[in-house]
Amino acid sequence: MAYELYYWDGIQGRGEFVRLALEEAAAQYVDVTRVAGRGTDEMLAIMGSKTEEHIPFAPPFLKDGDLFIPHVANILFYLGPKLGLAPENDGLRYVANGLQLTITDFVAEVHDTHHPISTGAYYEDQRDEAKARSAAFIKDRIPKFLGYFERVLQQNRKGPKHLIGDNLSYVDLSLFQVIEGLTYAFPKAMKSISNRYSGVETLHDHVGNRPNISAYLRSDRRLPFSEEGIFRHYPELDQPM
Amino acid sequence: MAYELYYWDGIQGRGEFVRLALEEAAAQYVDVTRVAGRGTDEMLAIMGSKTEEHIPFAPPFLKDGDLFIPHVANILFYLGPKLGLAPENDGLRYVANGLQLTITDFVAEVHDTHHPISTGAYYEDQRDEAKARSAAFIKDRIPKFLGYFERVLQQNRKGPKHLIGDNLSYVDLSLFQVIEGLTYAFPKAMKSISNRYSGVETLHDHVGNRPNISAYLRSDRRLPFSEEGIFRHYPELDQPM
Repeated sequence: MAYELYYWDGIQGRGEFVRLALEEAAAQYVDVTRVAGRGTDEMLAIMGSKTEEHIPFAPPFLKDGDLFIPHVANILFYLGPKLGLAPENDGLRYVANGLQLTITDFVAEVHDTHHPISTGAYYEDQRDEAKARSAAFIKDRIPKFLGYFERVLQQNRKGPKHLIGDNLSYVDLSLFQVIEGLTYAFPKAMKSISNRYSGVETLHDHVGNRPNISAYLRSDRRLPFSEEGIFRHYPELDQPM
Repeated sequence: MAYELYYWDGIQGRGEFVRLALEEAAAQYVDVTRVAGRGTDEMLAIMGSKTEEHIPFAPPFLKDGDLFIPHVANILFYLGPKLGLAPENDGLRYVANGLQLTITDFVAEVHDTHHPISTGAYYEDQRDEAKARSAAFIKDRIPKFLGYFERVLQQNRKGPKHLIGDNLSYVDLSLFQVIEGLTYAFPKAMKSISNRYSGVETLHDHVGNRPNISAYLRSDRRLPFSEEGIFRHYPELDQPM
């Protein structure tokens, strides 16, 4: 049976980390809110259910049979071995999950660059605070996170092509997506990436050129980045690193 | 061999979610930075290692044999079955992890109430923004998260004593800690919790009265809350919900 992915229609958002894994593995899946005859109402009905035991707090969540699995890192931990995108070794699967959770934290900080005060308020009503937060993010946080992933690549004894071992994992795919998103949102800041984080950049290029990923990126299943998603390009928030 | 927990000395912080699970299970563990002859330097040396393959991005992390496992939810996913604090059913372990990751997000938002602009800057330099963020957090986010956990308790067919099934899990312990922390940080906001989220409050009281937890809370292994941790009491940020 096909996996069912539930996520907000119209944006890449956090759902995209799951889509990339499913696409790389050429897995059968339904992007529920985007297919004819189904839609966002079905997702909201699950979240608002008064009888379902395992209600998700927020999208994305995956349905596999009767099981609802929420949170990107959790979905990927679950899917990774089934899709051939996780380490064989049990202990290393927790190492992979640790890296993925660092990506989760990084992505949450990206979101807060444009919403530092309230998720429920408009960007335009917190623009000054967003400028301050983005400046700190570009100066301190991008180098801290990308510097970390560069070290992980370089210290991988079978690297530096992959974050873990010598096989592609879902964590590589997620780091690709982070670089895609940051380059969209902060092109000035990311201009110097190739000098500073060459391993990360090479991984990004390598993933983007994989046949299934490349075909996906050119398909209409890949939604464009936009100012409705997590990675938003507001020129006033961007500056050189 | 005893588990080794690495976390910043002197605060409960994120390490506390791991400590509570270890204490409830009466597991052998070493709180590395707090024992004689060892300390924070040892933790920083691991994080700064130029040869270790699986370097953690940040504390807390657990060492079990040769394996380093970072991130609270990941540590608890790993330890849960070993400590008898996870569901027996494999699928339900992902449900537990999903709940734990919702707690992770909640805790990150608590942190940002006092550091909405920059983790690297002082609270005093972002106090106005912290007031705005805290107001939104109390008005929108506490009810959203606690309302969600209340629903999970009430919709648990074997509940409402536990978040999953009819046995204590590490997620129950973590929700206890969130309520402890919120009550310390935002006493005015939390005053109405018993009316609104009675299931959550009952779970909190139940966990706090368990023999091992109660003994731990009275021991000197339990550090006090303080304005160095994640849950900070700044009276100017607190207001009724």
